[in-house]
Amino acid sequence: MSDTSTSQTERSAFRSIDAATGLAVGNPIAVHGPADVEAACVAADAAFDAYRATGNDARADFLERIGDEIVALGDDLIVTAMRESGLPRARLEGERGRTVGQLKLFAGVVRRGGWMGLRIEPALPDRAPLPRPDLRLRMIPLGPVAVFGASNFPLAFSTAGGDTASALAAGCPVVVKGHPAHPATGAMVAGAIDAAVAACGLPKGVFSHLVGPGNDLGSALVQDPRIAAVGFTGSRAGGLALVKLAQGREVPIPVYAEMSSINPVVLLPEALKARGAALGTAFVGSLTMGAGQFCTNPGLVLAVEGDGLDAFVSAAATALPEAPAATMLTGGIHAAYEQGIAALASHAAVKEISRGKVGEGVAQGQAAFFETTAAQFLSDKALGHEVFGASSLLVRCTSEDELHAVLRAAEGQLTATIQMDAGDADMASRLIPLLERKAGRILANGWPTGVEVAHAMVHGGPFPATSDGRTTSVGSLAIDRFLRPVSYQNLLPELLPEVLRDGTTAPRLIDGVPAN
Amino acid sequence: MSDTSTSQTERSAFRSIDAATGLAVGNPIAVHGPADVEAACVAADAAFDAYRATGNDARADFLERIGDEIVALGDDLIVTAMRESGLPRARLEGERGRTVGQLKLFAGVVRRGGWMGLRIEPALPDRAPLPRPDLRLRMIPLGPVAVFGASNFPLAFSTAGGDTASALAAGCPVVVKGHPAHPATGAMVAGAIDAAVAACGLPKGVFSHLVGPGNDLGSALVQDPRIAAVGFTGSRAGGLALVKLAQGREVPIPVYAEMSSINPVVLLPEALKARGAALGTAFVGSLTMGAGQFCTNPGLVLAVEGDGLDAFVSAAATALPEAPAATMLTGGIHAAYEQGIAALASHAAVKEISRGKVGEGVAQGQAAFFETTAAQFLSDKALGHEVFGASSLLVRCTSEDELHAVLRAAEGQLTATIQMDAGDADMASRLIPLLERKAGRILANGWPTGVEVAHAMVHGGPFPATSDGRTTSVGSLAIDRFLRPVSYQNLLPELLPEVLRDGTTAPRLIDGVPAN
Repeated sequence: MSDTSTSQTERSAFRSIDAATGLAVGNPIAVHGPADVEAACVAADAAFDAYRATGNDARADFLERIGDEIVALGDDLIVTAMRESGLPRARLEGERGRTVGQLKLFAGVVRRGGWMGLRIEPALPDRAPLPRPDLRLRMIPLGPVAVFGASNFPLAFSTAGGDTASALAAGCPVVVKGHPAHPATGAMVAGAIDAAVAACGLPKGVFSHLVGPGNDLGSALVQDPRIAAVGFTGSRAGGLALVKLAQGREVPIPVYAEMSSINPVVLLPEALKARGAALGTAFVGSLTMGAGQFCTNPGLVLAVEGDGLDAFVSAAATALPEAPAATMLTGGIHAAYEQGIAALASHAAVKEISRGKVGEGVAQGQAAFFETTAAQFLSDKALGHEVFGASSLLVRCTSEDELHAVLRAAEGQLTATIQMDAGDADMASRLIPLLERKAGRILANGWPTGVEVAHAMVHGGPFPATSDGRTTSVGSLAIDRFLRPVSYQNLLPELLPEVLRDGTTAPRLIDGVPAN
Repeated sequence: MSDTSTSQTERSAFRSIDAATGLAVGNPIAVHGPADVEAACVAADAAFDAYRATGNDARADFLERIGDEIVALGDDLIVTAMRESGLPRARLEGERGRTVGQLKLFAGVVRRGGWMGLRIEPALPDRAPLPRPDLRLRMIPLGPVAVFGASNFPLAFSTAGGDTASALAAGCPVVVKGHPAHPATGAMVAGAIDAAVAACGLPKGVFSHLVGPGNDLGSALVQDPRIAAVGFTGSRAGGLALVKLAQGREVPIPVYAEMSSINPVVLLPEALKARGAALGTAFVGSLTMGAGQFCTNPGLVLAVEGDGLDAFVSAAATALPEAPAATMLTGGIHAAYEQGIAALASHAAVKEISRGKVGEGVAQGQAAFFETTAAQFLSDKALGHEVFGASSLLVRCTSEDELHAVLRAAEGQLTATIQMDAGDADMASRLIPLLERKAGRILANGWPTGVEVAHAMVHGGPFPATSDGRTTSVGSLAIDRFLRPVSYQNLLPELLPEVLRDGTTAPRLIDGVPAN
């Protein structure tokens, strides 16, 4: 890089920001440029064959070692993440546990070996009219993966988060584009991964971490011919921009972008009658958790007019003004949130139910709850767009048919929630087929804001919740995003991958039937 | 439609063509228009929930019934397909067997239930710090699928071919855009599927068949908002056009396009020394089979200069002139083939090794074998493009390094073949990691033109062999293309899909571990 004062200014312009004060702290952070992107991708590509050849145990050990190294960063990591994200200590300590647990979950998946999808069909030399060849199949990793960390989970969905963990588990080297909202946190976690790479004797190119404040770094990364897939969590505009770049390459690549969702919550009549007020209070808890900065925040509430809905609204209207304003992740997110709720507040068809406490810091978000009618909601698509933060819209429906019509018109979602009592079962059973077509996760009598890291979790859903509804970005199924099948026909046993040779004990199908 | 003489002319212009004579036969075929596309998609969407709710046994019975109905069409089907495709009786009888076998394979997969990908994590109410919810996951079908039949497999990869069978197996209604090169064959097969739909008491919208000579029908189909995925086998231009349309939709959808591949065959030194001449003769057999009209036709042969290569070339040069010219599928395919081999023949860096017999019919293709050097091949990308038909190019390499360089520069492929003897094992082991990154199937000491319909088959590969290298279009793994995961959290047992309730005996993971 040149040493002119202009470039010095540009480089020093990138600083870690204290979310609560909006002020820069710490030393200027060197911005990576195109040459760094290329070097990271060249190293990742060069490391790919050696890394994917590691055995399942060695790769699992590596994942667990990353977890150990993150824990070894101690309280410094928590303090740094608190400063950069504005999130409280308990939340970040929990998130660290989640990050480490996620790495362990994938270590277990890698050790068990089901991820390899082994299939064996031995030769049938005497089959008529033609002999059957020996066919053996396994899943192999796609190649180096570009990961874009999320701002709202500076640990669990950033540098060593779900995308990184699942890509490394699959055998893909990872190049992280660190989120500029928490560069110091990202650098500490990247250091932990580097330490694990070294401790496990892996090539350095298995992991790289690039930082910079603008979009050019990410654009260059997605367009590098060595990158084979992209994981992203963030805004719809950001995700769609990456998808477009990936599709425009000479060799297009998959982009797994988790983008936007308003997570409809359907309040069924019997539940409202029995516990409308309690639901209203609990709803506010889910709405305002983490300043509403969850992908699964309940941004849309649906109910048919009837007994208990007033009690729900009135309890929410009572609880919300008590909800403290909370520091949002960045000034940009706060500004977009303010704009979003201002648009709702001034919308002719929308009525304000209540607001949370007014913020005092520079980037504190004030929670907001609005209402409209189904007819109005159906006539203006903009009312269905996500306002990232603690904002939600109640849509009053006049009938079950209208409720279904609103859901049919809704975009793809990460989650759909049903609040129901026993007497609502028939209505719920009519809803479920519709919700299955709209969302990746359907939950009953809870709130969508808790996302368990588990084998049976789906944190995904039809477009535009994600760019690829065939997958999940949380939970062990996420590893499948970074794999593709290869079939081996009549290869000499010594040339086959060891796990596909006769006598293997790995989980496999033989002639289509599971063998043990 | 209007009844003017112009539209009558347009409609009567679409006729079944006898491939051998180029003449139209039979009655004019009514061309479907935009209203038919919409009606088929509306019916498919309306049938979706009922069809996906069928149990595994009922759905498997339906797939088998389609096979029975196809067999019941008797010899008329074979005669019609022979006339329209120019393919010989034995090949089409074999293809019918393959089509029926494919439906049976998927019936078995559906009955066994592994396709549902069930995962269960029971609630842990006492877990600290937070209880674990009850989480259950299954794969559900994407929705109505548009299938574009291939011209080169009028039975096994067309109306009731692999894409249709796997989509129906997944629980997706199918709308087929029939291939205009075999409209009468397509209509007969569509009739067999309709009969199976009726016999099994399924909604009519489960299957529709649309025909027309132009591209507008297919464009409208891919853009219909009710279509959730596309299966296609054909040219690269055709596949990429569909991908672009699918990506430009308000809700983009996946396109599984199997497009183009030149299927490198690597002749290793010891194999050449031991049996160069025999390999040359066998190669010509694979090259000219079915007039070279296989996606897996060996269009590229690679060898390091050395003993035995001359024997290979000379045996091929002797065998090829004896290879009879064969009627190609359509006049258009024949014209493109003639253009492709003319371009190679006149290329300054390409030398002709030999040609097959000159054709006598209107659309008979003359086989052709050319050679060039690795240096020349690397300097002109056009030499790596597919010429669909019985044309192949030998690339002479001066070293193993140069052989690797050619393969690294090659585009993604469906297959890669190694001809080897025991003494070639080291060289083969250095090749395999490279071939894994380039192809969906790696085979030894055979020819790529046989594609077994099996659980361990991959007929897929990195772009541009297909538009999505994470999948296969042949074999039971193809069902996964049309599925997406849904997670159910804390649902009352009676609201869960039956296969996810306690006591289910379907194949599943419990807490990540296979249960029986």
